Amino acid sequence: MPAHPVRFVLVATSHPGNIGASARAMKTMAIEELTLVAPLAFPSAEATSLASGADELLARARVVDSVSAAVADCGLVLGTTSRERAKFRWTSLSARAAAERAASELATAPVAVLFGPERTGLSNEELELCHALVHIPANPEYGSLNLAQAVQVIAYELFLARDGASLPAREIALASAGELERLYVHLAAVLEEVDFADRQGGEHLERRLKRIIARAELDAGEVSILRGFLTAVQGKRRRAGALD
Amino acid sequence: MPAHPVRFVLVATSHPGNIGASARAMKTMAIEELTLVAPLAFPSAEATSLASGADELLARARVVDSVSAAVADCGLVLGTTSRERAKFRWTSLSARAAAERAASELATAPVAVLFGPERTGLSNEELELCHALVHIPANPEYGSLNLAQAVQVIAYELFLARDGASLPAREIALASAGELERLYVHLAAVLEEVDFADRQGGEHLERRLKRIIARAELDAGEVSILRGFLTAVQGKRRRAGALD
Repeated sequence: MPAHPVRFVLVATSHPGNIGASARAMKTMAIEELTLVAPLAFPSAEATSLASGADELLARARVVDSVSAAVADCGLVLGTTSRERAKFRWTSLSARAAAERAASELATAPVAVLFGPERTGLSNEELELCHALVHIPANPEYGSLNLAQAVQVIAYELFLARDGASLPAREIALASAGELERLYVHLAAVLEEVDFADRQGGEHLERRLKRIIARAELDAGEVSILRGFLTAVQGKRRRAGALD
Repeated sequence: MPAHPVRFVLVATSHPGNIGASARAMKTMAIEELTLVAPLAFPSAEATSLASGADELLARARVVDSVSAAVADCGLVLGTTSRERAKFRWTSLSARAAAERAASELATAPVAVLFGPERTGLSNEELELCHALVHIPANPEYGSLNLAQAVQVIAYELFLARDGASLPAREIALASAGELERLYVHLAAVLEEVDFADRQGGEHLERRLKRIIARAELDAGEVSILRGFLTAVQGKRRRAGALD
């Protein structure tokens, strides 16, 4: 983990519900520092209710009366804006690029991300405290994300940039190449025994079947199951042959 | 744009507000097809109010009584799950990888993404209709995204995968290399005229200054402004010199 935290700064938020939902969104992505600049109403029961499990993050929120006070100890300061408000001669970063920048800056100082009031967004004076503007790529005909949803997307990108996007670990090892190889040999034998072929010959179909098996990413137990099935097919044919 | 749409399928959603907020989140990312499987309450005033501008998407929502009916005409079907519920021997994709898969599948058929009920998530029977599970990487200690926020993150990744993540176009062309070069020559002349040097000599500082200018990504007008400033410095020195 990096040495310094990310701080989300909500500026002059009108709806307490958005503060609560933002706290929850932050916590899902392991961002723990919330600063509120002149919120219209805080603390509030509605915020606490929507925080749903992130209430201690909300309880620790710092309330200040200016953006300068909120970011005084930060290095990189980013200001979120909607795409339509892209500002003349400001550096503009996508959410993803901004998260990558932020993650690398955390080695040296806290990083702040500012979110403006619901209706108006950040003012020019507030943007002048930012090194770069961040926008979330969105539908050009309807780009208006709710505040807490913008918080969710930025937090998600920061989480990926900081902690990497790892998949859940595989619960059971894949079958070994040798086990698969023996399954394929067994399969080929059965295909021949059952005279399985189309116009292009049995080999074509055999290759298709092997590809299906490969895609299924079998574990050893599953290979045994299939081989058991093949053995069963052989046993039945042999018994049937004996009766011929 | 791809030939086929993405369909979001909300299964047995309890809170009408979540349906409305999901519709808004979808529309911000240009996903227009919403199917509701057995919603607890729909239509509802609360859903419409939270859809905020995405109400026509909500009005067009299809309501069906089973997941099978919702996905009958789809190719790839993806089921969202929280990481903790990763299922034995199901293919598991991160939101980003799933979006990339989905974008490529849209060439051939509609793609469905299923979102389960708020408390319980998708059942095993519902997951069995899916080709792969999708999880949103999240805080291992608190991974519980609100339904509409999970919808927002998946929709965002789909938007990026389909439409690419483009930055707003630069409003004004960068200054040409020639203009910058002339600025640097002018700057060097002024640095010498003003005897600007530190212990490492004037060249070291000149390089630092050039690097600052490079990072600022000047346009032609800004180069003129800086050169005007340099000319002003020279004029003042010359006048001052004349008075010596």
